[in-house]
Amino acid sequence: MHCVIMDEQPWKPKHVLIIVRHGESVFTQQNLFCGFAHDADLTDVGIQEAIRAGKLLKENNIQLDMAFTSVLKRAIKTLFYIQEELDCHWLPVVKTWRLNERHYGALQGLHKSETAEKYGEDQVKLWRRSYDVKPPPLDINDERWPGKQRQYAAMDQGMFPTSESLKDTIQRTLPCWYDQIAPAVKSGKNVLIVAHGNSLRGIIKYLDRVSDEDIVDYEVPTGIPMVYHLDEDLQPTKRYYLASDEEVALAQTLLANQGKIREK
Amino acid sequence: MHCVIMDEQPWKPKHVLIIVRHGESVFTQQNLFCGFAHDADLTDVGIQEAIRAGKLLKENNIQLDMAFTSVLKRAIKTLFYIQEELDCHWLPVVKTWRLNERHYGALQGLHKSETAEKYGEDQVKLWRRSYDVKPPPLDINDERWPGKQRQYAAMDQGMFPTSESLKDTIQRTLPCWYDQIAPAVKSGKNVLIVAHGNSLRGIIKYLDRVSDEDIVDYEVPTGIPMVYHLDEDLQPTKRYYLASDEEVALAQTLLANQGKIREK
Repeated sequence: MHCVIMDEQPWKPKHVLIIVRHGESVFTQQNLFCGFAHDADLTDVGIQEAIRAGKLLKENNIQLDMAFTSVLKRAIKTLFYIQEELDCHWLPVVKTWRLNERHYGALQGLHKSETAEKYGEDQVKLWRRSYDVKPPPLDINDERWPGKQRQYAAMDQGMFPTSESLKDTIQRTLPCWYDQIAPAVKSGKNVLIVAHGNSLRGIIKYLDRVSDEDIVDYEVPTGIPMVYHLDEDLQPTKRYYLASDEEVALAQTLLANQGKIREK
Repeated sequence: MHCVIMDEQPWKPKHVLIIVRHGESVFTQQNLFCGFAHDADLTDVGIQEAIRAGKLLKENNIQLDMAFTSVLKRAIKTLFYIQEELDCHWLPVVKTWRLNERHYGALQGLHKSETAEKYGEDQVKLWRRSYDVKPPPLDINDERWPGKQRQYAAMDQGMFPTSESLKDTIQRTLPCWYDQIAPAVKSGKNVLIVAHGNSLRGIIKYLDRVSDEDIVDYEVPTGIPMVYHLDEDLQPTKRYYLASDEEVALAQTLLANQGKIREK
């Protein structure tokens, strides 16, 4: 996917949007399916990734007016560490389940190699790498079912997924873009989104018009801020990471390999 | 001030409101006037106070649905450490300048003993301990003037104080109670307010109908959660601290002494 187009006036974008994917969580470290339904904390590595993201934003003199994140602590705490570096604790923050990670259904909490043993590697690959295939649903009586947790108390339970394909995740993420983020950007605010691999794929797919096939393989590197310049119609005029191409490519390769089934 | 009235049904309050005053900041530690206009960080002692407040809420099994705080990091970070202890990073948080500390005008950033030398101890006592006397105003061209900071960019500059009496602080705090906090409480949410000595005095004065004279001397202890039970009209039916009377009294005495002019 190449969508880096030079601004005609690169020194003065109409709108600025920043995207950061949270860093390593306890579940990533253990190679477990985490997703929507488990609120895993950041590891020390994940905290360092967040701090570095903040430092990169600061070095590049990026000023923020508002932030959006999920209701999962690995994203919220990544944002907090960024705020510490930028000294902008005052930033208004909207936390919404719509930016949560994909709901992996009954796979949630399973070790990726156990899952491969149980369902077969081809099936797991299909769940992970297809656009519109859902994993088996999580029963609403399962203790892993997050619908009864206090953070979702005000949510219409009819909206609550039991399992999501990437397509499902993107479809429930985009209303947050349309209804909350886009109006904030259009009003002139520099907006930061700190979220998860799959909810961020939704926003990137929409802004960059990425095909269903290509978005599946697109890895958003963790902890490396991505900057969009957008025109008055919120069309991207420029997109770049605050890191070298080599560093971004390395991070993407590591993430792609992490997705493969590993030994316990 | 005594306003502890027993509930008829103490096991089931209609509404629950929690108040926490942030702990020690770098400016408190140095005995400087801090207030609205300086965004001082917490000291390590202040962080420990915040963590303890979180532990007290957790031990007392207090569940939260929403929080309000100022746009000053000593309050916001106190809230963050409480959220860490309660594992409720997802909590919706409203940050508003209306909950900021009192604006000490031209006294901001001065050492309290320097101020006494410059203006006389009686005058300083009057500014600190009267209800409606403002300190000298801070010139809007003074580098300490916070009106040009990014967190206030969207604020009507006509609202921006140059100096506040306690009365002024309370008057600009209460609209946040009326328009944002009270509706959230009435809607059934358990609300936490993390703020500053003087903005919290405003809410306590209003809820407990404290006189102008008495509120000046009322010390809200730092880092000790205060729990209100409120009836359907938001009238207090019970109020208590999550600490022993002795501990609260000791904290209040220490704060009252801190307010006195000390040697450099």
